[in-house]
Amino acid sequence: MKLLEERIRKDGIVKSDEILKVDSFLNHQIDIRLYDRIGAEFARLFADRPVNKILTIEASGIGIACVTAMHFDVPVVFAKKAKSLNLDADHYVTKVQSFTHGRVYDVMVSKRCLSSSDHVLIIDDFLANGCAVNGLLDIIRQAGATAEGVGIVIEKGFQEGGERLRAQGVRVESLAIVERMDPVTGEITFR
Amino acid sequence: MKLLEERIRKDGIVKSDEILKVDSFLNHQIDIRLYDRIGAEFARLFADRPVNKILTIEASGIGIACVTAMHFDVPVVFAKKAKSLNLDADHYVTKVQSFTHGRVYDVMVSKRCLSSSDHVLIIDDFLANGCAVNGLLDIIRQAGATAEGVGIVIEKGFQEGGERLRAQGVRVESLAIVERMDPVTGEITFR
Repeated sequence: MKLLEERIRKDGIVKSDEILKVDSFLNHQIDIRLYDRIGAEFARLFADRPVNKILTIEASGIGIACVTAMHFDVPVVFAKKAKSLNLDADHYVTKVQSFTHGRVYDVMVSKRCLSSSDHVLIIDDFLANGCAVNGLLDIIRQAGATAEGVGIVIEKGFQEGGERLRAQGVRVESLAIVERMDPVTGEITFR
Repeated sequence: MKLLEERIRKDGIVKSDEILKVDSFLNHQIDIRLYDRIGAEFARLFADRPVNKILTIEASGIGIACVTAMHFDVPVVFAKKAKSLNLDADHYVTKVQSFTHGRVYDVMVSKRCLSSSDHVLIIDDFLANGCAVNGLLDIIRQAGATAEGVGIVIEKGFQEGGERLRAQGVRVESLAIVERMDPVTGEITFR
């Protein structure tokens, strides 16, 4: 997605050869017009799939999932990290290792929110090692639902997550795939 | 907001005289059409204010803030809990006690995302003791920005947060105010 790549080049900050900061427009401050264009693009890319639910994981996936859901006109479910007083005893649970935080989380979705009749599109802001997406796929499997695909805003093409998912036959559509980043020059190369 | 009160009566679950579960449509599974109506209502209520930014706190505030931002056509900033490898060293920090989790969090916003020229609308899903909103107001104060008001989806009118904020002169617009809840009958009374 040209508009997104241009924005990443303009406002993204290469912190290391692995860490790209996009928090001025994507995952701390949010450019809502860009989100709207991203949501429209996911709707175009997955127009051939009978999506009736969007699944993401808290926290930074929620906003883009909601705006995308407006284009699909379907509900969102966001998987929750750790246990809350308000959370159902009756839920699907899986473990996810966070690349950013270096921790392992329990991630859960209430059984009332996902069933075998659901056709689910996973949406997230980043794909790196694929742990979050694999956790969500595991939850979809536990529910007996159908995973229709995965929509990612920025894929780190130099990490193995996207390749592994595609090798499993999962349809992954990433709007920008970063091939490499140079922390010295700040240069970002897209696939 | 009639539509919201009806939905809370229909699908909300009274877990105790203090805890209301609305996770089938508001903060776990999300009814995106309802979010869109809520966003439109906030835009109507604060139409007289020169809002140029929406501020919320992760995680459950993000979705409603983003959909509301589409109605205002302004960016969203979501305050982050705890420190992440990706987060700027240069940020406003405040402490917030979570009602749901019973913990105290460091909450932060990058200084690049909020400045003295900003006119900020705070959006959140719940208002109970007011700790999250007070933390966000503190961050707005640190930035020298102007707080234009607070838009809340569900206020627990039997807790003191809303009353205290209004007593400080903060404009708080809550779309539904729960006066009391009966965990035995499941009855919910709105103000």
